[in-house]
Amino acid sequence: MAYINDNFLKLKAGYLFPEIARRVKVFQQSHADAKIIRMGIGDVTEPLPPACVTAMHNAVDELARRETFRGYGPEQGYDFLREAIVKNDYLPRSCEVAADEVFISDGSKCDGGNILDIFAKDNSIAVMDPVYPIYVDTNVMAGHTGDADASGEYGGLTYLRCNPENNFTPDLPGKSVNLIYLCFPNNPTGAVASKQTLAKWVDYARSNDAIILYDAAYEAYITDPAIPHSIYEIPGARDVAIEFRSFSKTAGFTGVRCAYTVVPHTLMGKSKDGQQVSLHKLWNRRHNTKFNGVFYAVQRGAEATYSPEGKQQVRALVDFYLANAKIIRESLTQLGLKSYGGVNAPYVWVQTPGKASSWDFFDRLLNETHVVTTPGSGFGKSGEGFFRVSAFNSRENVLEAMQRLKRCI
Amino acid sequence: MAYINDNFLKLKAGYLFPEIARRVKVFQQSHADAKIIRMGIGDVTEPLPPACVTAMHNAVDELARRETFRGYGPEQGYDFLREAIVKNDYLPRSCEVAADEVFISDGSKCDGGNILDIFAKDNSIAVMDPVYPIYVDTNVMAGHTGDADASGEYGGLTYLRCNPENNFTPDLPGKSVNLIYLCFPNNPTGAVASKQTLAKWVDYARSNDAIILYDAAYEAYITDPAIPHSIYEIPGARDVAIEFRSFSKTAGFTGVRCAYTVVPHTLMGKSKDGQQVSLHKLWNRRHNTKFNGVFYAVQRGAEATYSPEGKQQVRALVDFYLANAKIIRESLTQLGLKSYGGVNAPYVWVQTPGKASSWDFFDRLLNETHVVTTPGSGFGKSGEGFFRVSAFNSRENVLEAMQRLKRCI
Repeated sequence: MAYINDNFLKLKAGYLFPEIARRVKVFQQSHADAKIIRMGIGDVTEPLPPACVTAMHNAVDELARRETFRGYGPEQGYDFLREAIVKNDYLPRSCEVAADEVFISDGSKCDGGNILDIFAKDNSIAVMDPVYPIYVDTNVMAGHTGDADASGEYGGLTYLRCNPENNFTPDLPGKSVNLIYLCFPNNPTGAVASKQTLAKWVDYARSNDAIILYDAAYEAYITDPAIPHSIYEIPGARDVAIEFRSFSKTAGFTGVRCAYTVVPHTLMGKSKDGQQVSLHKLWNRRHNTKFNGVFYAVQRGAEATYSPEGKQQVRALVDFYLANAKIIRESLTQLGLKSYGGVNAPYVWVQTPGKASSWDFFDRLLNETHVVTTPGSGFGKSGEGFFRVSAFNSRENVLEAMQRLKRCI
Repeated sequence: MAYINDNFLKLKAGYLFPEIARRVKVFQQSHADAKIIRMGIGDVTEPLPPACVTAMHNAVDELARRETFRGYGPEQGYDFLREAIVKNDYLPRSCEVAADEVFISDGSKCDGGNILDIFAKDNSIAVMDPVYPIYVDTNVMAGHTGDADASGEYGGLTYLRCNPENNFTPDLPGKSVNLIYLCFPNNPTGAVASKQTLAKWVDYARSNDAIILYDAAYEAYITDPAIPHSIYEIPGARDVAIEFRSFSKTAGFTGVRCAYTVVPHTLMGKSKDGQQVSLHKLWNRRHNTKFNGVFYAVQRGAEATYSPEGKQQVRALVDFYLANAKIIRESLTQLGLKSYGGVNAPYVWVQTPGKASSWDFFDRLLNETHVVTTPGSGFGKSGEGFFRVSAFNSRENVLEAMQRLKRCI
């Protein structure tokens, strides 16, 4: 019999969001009439920007005619999109990023897991806690960790604690690590990192020969002009950081699937025998061998987010969700709950009342108000006693959910 | 400095198709006026079926309206598509496949590499030779092989030789192996496997507790009614086989990206401590954690291939390329070349004249006729002395290419 990858057996319970879906389904089965409001998973609700819709239609029509048909595209993405990204997301912030350093993909979740293909098993890895569960689970599956302990933390990982005391921006690790996952604006806490904070991490990475895996999927939600949108705004970051970005939460592409990852040419890893090896070359080889590019019409849709109308439409979407976040934050504060985030991020991070556990309070909210949130402990030990409220919803649902919470808290 | 995955350094040269692209580019730079005909990479040239185009437009329009907008879809694919696949691809052939055993993805190339995530490193692996290079390269990258020898073969892999003597259907391995890659209709040789041949492999897998990874991406090209389209047509295959299929070569989705993989519930692997573990559960977990589903509009487009018009349009596309294959086969035979395949497959596999090496003949054809083929040795040692001609092209190009070859051979 073929041997399985035993590392999968180390995984504790299901991945967070399927587990939430399971509990909601069980609840629904006994409460068929309940009107459930989902503020758990961070999924957009507003339609696609018209500029993207037009671009997708046009691209599909190109594929419908022999003269303009296109088959396989470049695995790394079409130049028109890679160049638009550099021109619009990086040049205006004086970040040195070349078009061929931008790799188009079908999602940051995929990239965040797949990037581990190019790294060895024996790196020491640091993750923020609480953290987007994908970072931890993909490392477990790849055999980069030991077993989970009673609290659900995996041996071998360095957890960078984030809590109200440090404004949810963690301290540098006490030991030397090789790979560091950072996410700002943060999912789930909504915290942001100042230039000084990011510079501290870039310095650490340069001094310790570490690589930062920087998740900037929510950069469009930054409202404070002093906060950097890209880690490449920090001098020296090109030598130590990979950046992940997505069209999911900007243009509402969660069901469309388009993202990108920047791997600078100057970024080096080390082979066992001490040679320096270009991580760009390795990631490029990985793309060539295990990926076949993104649908042409999707790439044209993504490109359209950078047109003058596209930019306005994306801005309106982001502003709409940020206005939801403001309503949530203010409503929860009025209810006497202590909340964080929601100013430069689409997530509000809230302390459970009465020191209730995250899952207990999740179940209570689901049962009493039919509102689905995300239990903080699903993001890690430091998330215990918190819950995440997503601002991705219709205005009507947000207002209704806040009314229901009033009756419950 | 972070350690890289040293297994990448074992890979010999670039992945085949980028290497071809590189040589063509070099040629173009010194022959700007040459009208190159590309019969190398198996990429479709005909426009998308109108049924798919309509379905995609409609789906994009759904996403353009708030009432019908959809965000994240199920990671495993929408039920409408999984059910259409079972109903149309499996039930008519009396294959027992359940909808939740079908996993929708963005490509067979991706699935073929990613499936290794759920297997341990210490399986013994057999591949056909010649073989689609992805199977070998992804195993190298995952650390399942030793180094390459002088001939380019990797230590630890069992190569199943395919040659004219065995009709390009290999003999059973002399030793016990755990994972077996089979591809019929075969890329690159165009060979097919009879029910008897497949039954022999299913028996072998059942007796040796092995898993067959069955690539059926070209099943639509089978013209002989006696040839099975799915390995699940063989009794007992559900317990030993994973099947990969794609919309790339049926509906011309190479640039659209949609495929599927069937992992039956009855398929088991073994953990180190001897427990039986469901491979379906592991692959499901992998999908949940490292994948986020396929664009809704693409899944609607794929579903449309099963509508009455869609079926006709796909059939017409396949027939068109098969007619190209016939022209190629007959032209090459007239030129005195010995060729195989092209009857139940879109590829014609041809012996080089005068025992020329595959790359030498590739370069000669490129330079003298400006026709790009695929050198057989790029698919493995047993491919040396052959070249592959793809039938995926316009009729005009196929006829012109055959004329040019006449002047050269």
